[in-house]
Amino acid sequence: MSKIVTAKNTSKKDAIILRASGLFKNKGYNAASMRELAESLGVEAPSLYNHIGSKSELLQAICFKVAEEFTSQLHQAEISHKGSQATVEAIIRFHIRMMVEHYDEVFVANHEWKHLKEPYLSDFLNQRRTYEKKLVALVEKGITERVFRNINPYVVVLNLLSAVRGLEFWHRHKNKVDTQELEEDMVTHLLTGMVN
Amino acid sequence: MSKIVTAKNTSKKDAIILRASGLFKNKGYNAASMRELAESLGVEAPSLYNHIGSKSELLQAICFKVAEEFTSQLHQAEISHKGSQATVEAIIRFHIRMMVEHYDEVFVANHEWKHLKEPYLSDFLNQRRTYEKKLVALVEKGITERVFRNINPYVVVLNLLSAVRGLEFWHRHKNKVDTQELEEDMVTHLLTGMVN
Repeated sequence: MSKIVTAKNTSKKDAIILRASGLFKNKGYNAASMRELAESLGVEAPSLYNHIGSKSELLQAICFKVAEEFTSQLHQAEISHKGSQATVEAIIRFHIRMMVEHYDEVFVANHEWKHLKEPYLSDFLNQRRTYEKKLVALVEKGITERVFRNINPYVVVLNLLSAVRGLEFWHRHKNKVDTQELEEDMVTHLLTGMVN
Repeated sequence: MSKIVTAKNTSKKDAIILRASGLFKNKGYNAASMRELAESLGVEAPSLYNHIGSKSELLQAICFKVAEEFTSQLHQAEISHKGSQATVEAIIRFHIRMMVEHYDEVFVANHEWKHLKEPYLSDFLNQRRTYEKKLVALVEKGITERVFRNINPYVVVLNLLSAVRGLEFWHRHKNKVDTQELEEDMVTHLLTGMVN
């Protein structure tokens, strides 16, 4: 039985979560098995269970890790007092980078959350609703300050979140636009459209 | 055995396709059965087969109906010689209206196309690729004319298509923004962001 090999600064549990994200993304949560996960990590299934209790616990770990990263980034942006435009720009850029650099985990949090068990399911959905409400409030604040155009802030947030989520199609595209150009041009299009 | 009841100007086949779209959207193509479809239309299964050959044929009918509506609308916009901005605006508005007014069919074409059989699958994907290429070319033309900002046209098209597709979340939202306001504000945000 071999040990789980990890990169420097990555705990074994983190390495398992990362590999599970790729597996859940490619096969779907329901079809993926702990046996496959162990195989892809090059270990026996029992050694997996030293680090993680169940497949369900892995899904929770992935979804809440992603949710907490977004929530924490939004909180940082809110307390930075950089002004509405710079704050929203920082948030758009963070979403793009998460979709580009942590695609597997974000994909699982976006698509497979529905397999979470209670009370985790309700907790996750509450976190997501709170996040969206805070984003809407940020856009609303910018509209009041006349930094942003007077367009429905819910519609703006819907456009922003849909556009970054649509990076799924960029991932599947063979001739990918370079990530730096992608980020700059997405920000220019989406931010210019809302700025007064 | 009762007859399939249809609204004025709707053929029986159209009525079946529309009902099948709702069923495929709610249950997924794989889980949906012809028996359920017959039940929801209030007819016996054999009378369904007078109008449609198989479940697979229904999926083809839905996907290609949607693809042809988009292709035909794009063609109309291209030959209208209205200028790049008005042309792209017309296309964004058409996408929004299709998502709002023909949601079930568009949802099935967006999500369940992967269950199409060959040669329909390749044909559908080719139509979609051609459509996207034409959209990119339209945006490129507007950039050359300096009507649109110099941002990667592929990124612009990705943002546009992702945003309209994201209207799925609007559909699921309880307190929906009014459709007129939704359309105007989406167009303002997405079009202003690309116009020079």
